[in-house]
Amino acid sequence: MSQISRGLEDVLIKTTSLTFIDGIHGVLRYRGYDINDLVEHSSYEELIYLMLYGELPSQKQLSELKAKINESYDVPEQVINIIYSLPRNCDVIGIMESAFGIMASIYNPKWDRTKDRDVAIGIIAKTATVTANAFRAKEGLKPKIPRPSSSYSRSFLEASFDKEVSDIEAKVMDSALILYTDHEVPASTTAGLVASSTLSDMYSCIVAALAALKGPLHGGAAEEAFKQFVEIGSPEKVEEWFKTNIIEGKKRLMGFGHRVYKTYDPRAKIFKRLADELTKNNKEGRRYFEIAERLEKLGVDTFSPKGIYPNTDFYSGIVFYSLGFPIYMYTALFALARTLGWLAHFIEYVEEQHRLIRPRALYIGPEYKEYVPIDKR
Amino acid sequence: MSQISRGLEDVLIKTTSLTFIDGIHGVLRYRGYDINDLVEHSSYEELIYLMLYGELPSQKQLSELKAKINESYDVPEQVINIIYSLPRNCDVIGIMESAFGIMASIYNPKWDRTKDRDVAIGIIAKTATVTANAFRAKEGLKPKIPRPSSSYSRSFLEASFDKEVSDIEAKVMDSALILYTDHEVPASTTAGLVASSTLSDMYSCIVAALAALKGPLHGGAAEEAFKQFVEIGSPEKVEEWFKTNIIEGKKRLMGFGHRVYKTYDPRAKIFKRLADELTKNNKEGRRYFEIAERLEKLGVDTFSPKGIYPNTDFYSGIVFYSLGFPIYMYTALFALARTLGWLAHFIEYVEEQHRLIRPRALYIGPEYKEYVPIDKR
Ligand SMILES: CC(C)(COP(=O)(O)OP(=O)(O)OC[C@H]1O[C@@H](n2cnc3c(N)ncnc32)[C@H](O)[C@@H]1OP(=O)(O)O)[C@@H](O)C(=O)NCCC(=O)NCCS
Ligand SMILES: CC(C)(COP(=O)(O)OP(=O)(O)OC[C@H]1O[C@@H](n2cnc3c(N)ncnc32)[C@H](O)[C@@H]1OP(=O)(O)O)[C@@H](O)C(=O)NCCC(=O)NCCS
Repeated sequence: MSQISRGLEDVLIKTTSLTFIDGIHGVLRYRGYDINDLVEHSSYEELIYLMLYGELPSQKQLSELKAKINESYDVPEQVINIIYSLPRNCDVIGIMESAFGIMASIYNPKWDRTKDRDVAIGIIAKTATVTANAFRAKEGLKPKIPRPSSSYSRSFLEASFDKEVSDIEAKVMDSALILYTDHEVPASTTAGLVASSTLSDMYSCIVAALAALKGPLHGGAAEEAFKQFVEIGSPEKVEEWFKTNIIEGKKRLMGFGHRVYKTYDPRAKIFKRLADELTKNNKEGRRYFEIAERLEKLGVDTFSPKGIYPNTDFYSGIVFYSLGFPIYMYTALFALARTLGWLAHFIEYVEEQHRLIRPRALYIGPEYKEYVPIDKR
Repeated sequence: MSQISRGLEDVLIKTTSLTFIDGIHGVLRYRGYDINDLVEHSSYEELIYLMLYGELPSQKQLSELKAKINESYDVPEQVINIIYSLPRNCDVIGIMESAFGIMASIYNPKWDRTKDRDVAIGIIAKTATVTANAFRAKEGLKPKIPRPSSSYSRSFLEASFDKEVSDIEAKVMDSALILYTDHEVPASTTAGLVASSTLSDMYSCIVAALAALKGPLHGGAAEEAFKQFVEIGSPEKVEEWFKTNIIEGKKRLMGFGHRVYKTYDPRAKIFKRLADELTKNNKEGRRYFEIAERLEKLGVDTFSPKGIYPNTDFYSGIVFYSLGFPIYMYTALFALARTLGWLAHFIEYVEEQHRLIRPRALYIGPEYKEYVPIDKR
């Protein structure tokens, strides 16, 4: 038996044709396409097709995909009921876990390679419904199911808010979804893969992934990063806050550091550009952006010798904030995008390389002990 | 980077003082105590204490633990509402995922070593409530919260059924819980550990574990094993069924085989003994037992050269059947017991050896591809 692998660092759990990361040069590609190209030229719907079917779609394939998504936004009434019956201060990822648990219970699909991609597309549509309504419930609004529009991103935003959605907002949402779509096998994907390896149903695999995404060391980091900006309050207070909390307080700088990237996360650069553009005409947003920029500089000065740089969650919060979402939604928006990556990995694993995932633990406990009755202890 | 580890076979994900398995000699111990001794002399409450606190309890410690359990059976009303609003034919583990998702959302506890064991004890009590009521809902019965009694097992059975529970039934339930309590790091525990490694809350970690347990290659196997007995129908049909389905049909014999045991699973032996005793005076049960025994013999004759023997799920279904549970409950009863093992592993991991679990994937996909607009594809 091999040595213990703390945090499974460098252990290869599967092969993949989905996502390529070069952690030294800061490169991220989906099926060969660089994320910079995809954000600039492509759309989330194209990416759904690319991830699930292996190639960018033809016009016809894209239309068919959009039609399937548009047909699948509805969710069982129990899902809407539970979302709107939870207390206003409850956690959003927990809501999503329960919503997908309900759908696992009701739909409970079996793995079947002739149907898996359709199930996946259904889940992607329903994730928009669940995410938008988790937000609405917490805001005290009424249920609203996404409706067909020019794009998935627009449909999601229109379902979330009771306001006009601008083309820029829809485009930015689309970019955020593309950026968060996949990242190889982080904790959430790994948890879902383990579930898929027992041939558990696809909804349950999403449930497992959500449960792992929730933690502050993973998907929860975008919220934690933004909370730092709020806590700091203004750009001139960054230095002091950094000294007290990070240098002396030895807290981790949230939105910094990554198991794979030892340089700038390429997604962080794009999120920074989007955050910069979006906050140009918004005073409060601009303040957060300026705080983030100063904090970034201090963080990089301090931690870059250890290979610790801003990750994707550092600036994404400012983008979500600019779209009108409160902090408690950032992990859910990450989940909304990542659902596609999760599903693509589960399908790849089950179809191409399936085996039960069952590691070992190294036993370091006591040798055989004789049982002693309670009155003799 | 190391070689790809298919199914993480022999990869060590953590150290543990909880559970020792000798897969060659068929030995299983919890914190040094052999499961045969525990089933014979101990109780599930003692085991809860042993797993969470490291030692068997004194009389006082045991009483305090029981009091804590007795105080914690209540669940949020949303949990009861969702359980009773799902369609009768829905999947039970999905119900449990949604119930724990709701509690993750409402309670959302942070990790805190001064409180984690109390949270865990609360979860153990609430799992009895959720499991019993999932069963009641599917049977068309009314909600019923477990109430203090002489044991956790009895309280669970009394909540599940509207009938007298005999001492033998309570004792058998207790034995089943002990046998299923922990098994080192199978898929369900691994999925939950991955969630705990992001510092996700303990309820969400249970959700992840449930999602992985659900699959037929893991917790789902007890149901699948029993379905074989039902399908076979009578002992004299075993040979033919085995030939058609397993030998020629090349289906897997469910309830056989294990990643770690290459001999008889010690739990299978105890479950067999319990099944034998319980079916002595029950004609239909006896028939299943006789079918199982014949099937076991054929399975061992055929597969033992490959190290494939009956596992814990082969006879457990007959025990659950004898207690009055329908097939659809077997995985849930496994979950009820395993919740303790899961929680003990999560706490051990977070307290003693915490690190984000983040393996890698080996990229085998295309090199850089230039983006081609849709009208040029
Ligand atoms: C993401 C993360 C968990 C990956 O880290 P990892 O590969 O598990 O590495 P470790 O936790 O073992 O940390 C390695 C070292 O870097 C330090 N480090 C890592 N991230 C750090 C951060 N954000 N701030 C300060 N120090 C950090 C650790 O303290 C440790 O230092 P040491 O060797 O002196 O003890 C980690 O960088 C982190 O906690 N970041 C903050 C949360 C976050 O932004 N997560 C989102 C990731 S997309
Ligand atoms: C539990 C299980 C997944 C562990 O298996 P694993 O370590 O992943 O081993 P593999 O699936 O790689 O199987 C190894 C070989 O044994 C065979 N095998 C394993 N379990 C078998 C079974 N129950 N019936 C028939 N053949 C079996 C496989 O077909 C394979 O044969 P091959 O080498 O000729 O291809 C497997 O034994 C199984 O599927 N059992 C049935 C389900 C079950 O009872 N699960 C509960 C476990 S507690």
